[in-house]
Amino acid sequence: MDENRRVSIEVLFYPKTVAVIGATAERKFGQIAFENLLKNKGGIEVIPVNPKAETILGVKCYPSVKAISGKVDLAVVIVPAKIALQVVSECVEKGVKAVILISGGFSETGPEGKQLEEQVIKAIKGSKTRILGPNTLGVLMPRNAINTTFFPEDRFIKPRDGKIAFISQSGASAVAFMETATFYEVGFSAFVGLGNEADLTETDFIEYFAEDPGTSVICLYLEKISNGRRFLQVCRRVSKEKSLVVLKAGRTERGARAALSHTGSLAGFDKVADGAFKQYGIVRAIDETELLDYAVALAFQRPLPGDRIAVLTFGGGAGVIATDLIEASQHLRMADLPKNVKKKLRDVVAPFASVNNPVDTTGNITNEQVEKVLKILQEAEGVDGILTIMGLQSVYISLELVNLLVKWARHGSKPMVVVGLGVGLTLEAVRKL
Amino acid sequence: MDENRRVSIEVLFYPKTVAVIGATAERKFGQIAFENLLKNKGGIEVIPVNPKAETILGVKCYPSVKAISGKVDLAVVIVPAKIALQVVSECVEKGVKAVILISGGFSETGPEGKQLEEQVIKAIKGSKTRILGPNTLGVLMPRNAINTTFFPEDRFIKPRDGKIAFISQSGASAVAFMETATFYEVGFSAFVGLGNEADLTETDFIEYFAEDPGTSVICLYLEKISNGRRFLQVCRRVSKEKSLVVLKAGRTERGARAALSHTGSLAGFDKVADGAFKQYGIVRAIDETELLDYAVALAFQRPLPGDRIAVLTFGGGAGVIATDLIEASQHLRMADLPKNVKKKLRDVVAPFASVNNPVDTTGNITNEQVEKVLKILQEAEGVDGILTIMGLQSVYISLELVNLLVKWARHGSKPMVVVGLGVGLTLEAVRKL
Repeated sequence: MDENRRVSIEVLFYPKTVAVIGATAERKFGQIAFENLLKNKGGIEVIPVNPKAETILGVKCYPSVKAISGKVDLAVVIVPAKIALQVVSECVEKGVKAVILISGGFSETGPEGKQLEEQVIKAIKGSKTRILGPNTLGVLMPRNAINTTFFPEDRFIKPRDGKIAFISQSGASAVAFMETATFYEVGFSAFVGLGNEADLTETDFIEYFAEDPGTSVICLYLEKISNGRRFLQVCRRVSKEKSLVVLKAGRTERGARAALSHTGSLAGFDKVADGAFKQYGIVRAIDETELLDYAVALAFQRPLPGDRIAVLTFGGGAGVIATDLIEASQHLRMADLPKNVKKKLRDVVAPFASVNNPVDTTGNITNEQVEKVLKILQEAEGVDGILTIMGLQSVYISLELVNLLVKWARHGSKPMVVVGLGVGLTLEAVRKL
Repeated sequence: MDENRRVSIEVLFYPKTVAVIGATAERKFGQIAFENLLKNKGGIEVIPVNPKAETILGVKCYPSVKAISGKVDLAVVIVPAKIALQVVSECVEKGVKAVILISGGFSETGPEGKQLEEQVIKAIKGSKTRILGPNTLGVLMPRNAINTTFFPEDRFIKPRDGKIAFISQSGASAVAFMETATFYEVGFSAFVGLGNEADLTETDFIEYFAEDPGTSVICLYLEKISNGRRFLQVCRRVSKEKSLVVLKAGRTERGARAALSHTGSLAGFDKVADGAFKQYGIVRAIDETELLDYAVALAFQRPLPGDRIAVLTFGGGAGVIATDLIEASQHLRMADLPKNVKKKLRDVVAPFASVNNPVDTTGNITNEQVEKVLKILQEAEGVDGILTIMGLQSVYISLELVNLLVKWARHGSKPMVVVGLGVGLTLEAVRKL
């Protein structure tokens, strides 16, 4: 990738010195972003900039970024749109490598804002300063606790460290989706809110995370594609090494118009997106639940060698629903279990259980029986992957079942996904998986 | 409805005396169902029946239902399939009004089991004894803590009291779905696991709950329809008074085959189901998440007077996704906000917020502004219902927002649904809604 862009993106996640321009003594966004950044790990220096304050949260405040004596790698900017141009110009003069422009009021608001955005971009032309945003929450990196958002710590659950990089044209919504994922103990290598993408775009970040050893799945929420050709070329290359999952919103005409008000982008790409995504190795999700489900499955699983799925369930209804979803998906199908496999299963399960696919053991099953069934399915011909739908409501199963499932999911020869039914004990168990 | 069936169903939920035939001194299903029933509220007498025990959990045990001196309303039967026929015959002789036949091993297992099931049904012919099952978990009624399932109390979260009656051809899976609903503080007036429906069917229960003042939504998980004509006739009548939501599984051919192994039913009805459901006032769900979401929305909301939806969001991405889902749904569409409404909104929100539909206030909003926006949308011409997508991550909103949303959702002139983004504070808030 472009070396200047790579260096600037690196600075977003691993800065040495950060100036927070627009930090305030009042309980406003500018104070909260500053406070969040102060909590970073690894000795990153964070300096408030505001001509009207002496100190903020006990830290010496500077009137401008130029007044700071040492080098500044990264500037986080939360000022009204109309003074953003001057602030960015000063960052260029100071040699700041990256600016996170949190301020809104640019191309997402109409022609006047668009003009202002163009002026800001003109200000960095020819320099090594790159801009993330405007109209962005910036970045989160659990690994070193970098957090440029303006959400107070007591208001949201911060993501934990993991293997999923989340690149998003939405900020607040994406952070809320991550909160849900975090509740299920799913972790993230990084989050980037792209905002209006006046400079750095989704494709720059895909290229960056392709090279990040801590990232195995790149997960994108997109309302537009900045440069379709480059995006697809990069995805084709990256998808050979890492999993790419995309929620492309603005599918409908009204959705596309809503995207225009949101990040000032026209989501016209959609009609060809389905075909192109498939061709270039991108998994498409239709809502945020699918996006995170796919990302999690891909973060922990090898790719399927084929499309034939065996379903194991302790409750018949879930097995029938799963069968419908698999058969309707067009990517997967239900495996036909060979006669000898059915015979082996029959010897293990209760007489009224079903040994067809889905294998429905009913609740009348013990851990030992589950283990035997899984071994038979792992060894079965004609099965490429296993979906286990687990509930822990029945008394004959012990909670040790979770360790048994973890063992097979991690070390079985076939990819296995485990879905929990219910939220009590089962949720606790799923969190351990 | 048929008076004998009505009386027998009444007894399932409000018995005076229950015999648990197959209660055991061992930690098996028969003991757990007995133990669960002992915890009922309202002085219901529960008597264990087992020829091999003197007492079970300290309660005097009888060798057979006939040996019990007083009247028995309801028998819960957990015995091997091969002795079920004799047990049911004894219940008929005793004048038991309803039998919950939990035992599996009947038509769901093949021709031999089917024959056995037919014999059991023959045994009740001409009597006033009705059977729920076989192959069922039976019933749960939070109102009086009636619970015939064999899940130990420490293994699952019991449903709380509410307005949704859940009628299901799946037992274990449905209980797990309810567990998830309970986690979100959603309550149920009753749960019925139908099992094989050898006698009492889904339509009997629809008729029963149609007359239950505690039920406002009837929610069904079905793999087959026992008698299509009668089902649709009853639904047409009932849907004028109460909401009917159906998850009809076995949509695909393989799903239908899985249903055959599960409850011994052929799910051939599907191809005409979509049209018929729409015509007869039934809301169709495609998975368990939709089923519960629809049930919850209908339990708390009046019907929409039209299809034009206004979306209010604090985070743009969620607004775009919601727009896509609304426009793609074919039942709803995005409202066009009149110019004067947009002007009123513009006076309230931040300059960079969007006043088109979806209305995206951005995170830069206070409770007072949310209240003003809601008032404008409630009064707006051309809007039939409001979807509010709420996050509590931003500092300018206080948690009091929840009470404000409750007020508008309950007392606003237009139906309003609130969706939470994230799981921390927002989840706590959603639970209060």
